[in-house]
Amino acid sequence: MTSPAPFTAADYRARMNRAAEDALAAGLAGLVVAPGPDMDWLTGYRPAAATERLTLLVLAVGREPVLIVPTLESGDVEKAPGGEALTLRDWRDGVDPYGLAAPLLADGGRFGVSDNAWALHLLGLSRALPSSSYVALSEALPMLRAVKDAAELERIAAAGASADATYEEIKKVTFAGRRESEVAKDLAGLLIGFGHSQVDFTVVGSGPNGADPHHEAGERVIGDGDTVVLDFGGLMHGYGSDTTRTVHVGEPDDEVRKVHAVVQEAQQAGCAAVRPGVACQEIDRAARAVIEEAGYGEYFIHRTGHGIGVTTHEPPYMIEGEEQPLVPGMCFSVEPGIYLPGRFGVRIEDIVTVTEDGGRRFNRTSRELAVVA
Amino acid sequence: MTSPAPFTAADYRARMNRAAEDALAAGLAGLVVAPGPDMDWLTGYRPAAATERLTLLVLAVGREPVLIVPTLESGDVEKAPGGEALTLRDWRDGVDPYGLAAPLLADGGRFGVSDNAWALHLLGLSRALPSSSYVALSEALPMLRAVKDAAELERIAAAGASADATYEEIKKVTFAGRRESEVAKDLAGLLIGFGHSQVDFTVVGSGPNGADPHHEAGERVIGDGDTVVLDFGGLMHGYGSDTTRTVHVGEPDDEVRKVHAVVQEAQQAGCAAVRPGVACQEIDRAARAVIEEAGYGEYFIHRTGHGIGVTTHEPPYMIEGEEQPLVPGMCFSVEPGIYLPGRFGVRIEDIVTVTEDGGRRFNRTSRELAVVA
Repeated sequence: MTSPAPFTAADYRARMNRAAEDALAAGLAGLVVAPGPDMDWLTGYRPAAATERLTLLVLAVGREPVLIVPTLESGDVEKAPGGEALTLRDWRDGVDPYGLAAPLLADGGRFGVSDNAWALHLLGLSRALPSSSYVALSEALPMLRAVKDAAELERIAAAGASADATYEEIKKVTFAGRRESEVAKDLAGLLIGFGHSQVDFTVVGSGPNGADPHHEAGERVIGDGDTVVLDFGGLMHGYGSDTTRTVHVGEPDDEVRKVHAVVQEAQQAGCAAVRPGVACQEIDRAARAVIEEAGYGEYFIHRTGHGIGVTTHEPPYMIEGEEQPLVPGMCFSVEPGIYLPGRFGVRIEDIVTVTEDGGRRFNRTSRELAVVA
Repeated sequence: MTSPAPFTAADYRARMNRAAEDALAAGLAGLVVAPGPDMDWLTGYRPAAATERLTLLVLAVGREPVLIVPTLESGDVEKAPGGEALTLRDWRDGVDPYGLAAPLLADGGRFGVSDNAWALHLLGLSRALPSSSYVALSEALPMLRAVKDAAELERIAAAGASADATYEEIKKVTFAGRRESEVAKDLAGLLIGFGHSQVDFTVVGSGPNGADPHHEAGERVIGDGDTVVLDFGGLMHGYGSDTTRTVHVGEPDDEVRKVHAVVQEAQQAGCAAVRPGVACQEIDRAARAVIEEAGYGEYFIHRTGHGIGVTTHEPPYMIEGEEQPLVPGMCFSVEPGIYLPGRFGVRIEDIVTVTEDGGRRFNRTSRELAVVA
């Protein structure tokens, strides 16, 4: 497996230019971007951690991008792939960094701010720019990172193939008699072994734990006759994977088979509904209709999907009320489930991208109920 | 090594009561607390990740603590050690969670908000409560978590002892000819081996990399004659460690010895200044005076220290301008350094707690310049 060519300063410059244009079109005076996925995508700079020390990318319409950064960390920015495309304003402990930001922004303007920017920093900016107002970037420009270009699709496809290879191998391990946490560790090891640089989640929900969609993996010992939800993903070459399959230890009974078949049909319906121009909520409706029709509507307790890119969880969301039309290049999960409290759960999930005339899945392993040992 | 007794729902209830009282005394109508260290300390509940789905602890003066939580995650809260002390308001995808928060808070009130609360959520709250205002918790109640009780001091002491054991072992490994990243991996393995549950940082700054105080560990091959800054820590039983020692590969020359002696004297002066009633900035001044006196003032480019508790980096800060008086039970680092750009750096750091009549260090390994192989 060859690594994709790294993004260049020119790539990041183009992204920042587009973001500034999008901001202008949305009636914003600019964007203030915090460490995390927005900054990663726009600059390639990933500080080790977001902290109380302000690091902030300022994209003001009509100006060069400026990164405000603690002096201690300015060397790291220069080494980042988009570092050349940035003007740095570094500050030392004791200086008011919000005062540095203020002259870069028009007081009285409305700015988009990264969803995950710290409240501390938003309040600091508000103090330095008392007449400005702010809107969350996911509300102002929800689709900023949503449409992936060819180089991004290549990475998401590779991450999907790595997750698929992981599923093929995990089916061969022993489940019965082992703890969920042990199988989770197997999943993490396989993801890394197949090229992931980071594991974000390894859900192993056995028996009743599978009925809690956000259960990760615990000390429960998996038994013969258990249904087990396996939901795993992470980052590879900076882009995400996320897939779910449900397996059964030994031969499943009729009810498990039936519930699984309903979820499989719902997931298929959701994927089949993907094409340009369709609203996100239609994907949710397509999957949900199958589950409701089968009488399990009240047991499908989450939205049908979420976007994926430099994070494993981002807009657009496949949820009732989301009228955003699908655009070629968008990538998201389709992951309906049925959760029978205290008993078991079933979920099936693929990452799908919107093509010119439909959708294409990045996860291609069998969606049938697999029997494991 | 025995594990400390876990904190109980009663412990968390007492912390939440005190936080509400402190809020009232500070003229606040309450606190809104995000996932992260504040929520961890107040409730024992640690969601796997902060996300766009609102999880929020609302401590309104004169009311029972309420946790707003996605339905998917409410089972996890019930299992958390402070779960019994909380009233849950869960919400499903599609519901406006800020609308759930609004009736719990008096519109028009001023609220303290966790520093690391997402801007998305602060903006959502502001929309639901248009007349309310917010102040960062580290500004409104900077000392909320700063004074540790006996059970917390026991944990920080244990974490410090584990870090000290790590340093004793790392001195025995080979440095020359190995990459910084390899020594960093050794440090992480030792911390875990000596009981840490989480490694937060393993700085190995060799030669010129040591002159960048925030350099972590890279691919540089450590050579004979290098000065190496080792700064490592993480969490053990939920509380932090953080210690730095500077070592030298082979015999150091006179300049390295001199710079190290200055830093050692500065660190000693900082620690010696610790006693109740002294302002935080006096610790910085005491350490800085030694370095300035020796002519290296311009090369000490960060504050002298930071608090430690359920995080490895929190108020109080030992920095010019911080007039907060020290109180028995506070725990923080004393970590002056000298950084000669392009050449080498030296830093020495201990965690210190304020006692009734002075200070006590939780790191006790030799602060002399150690020669390694």
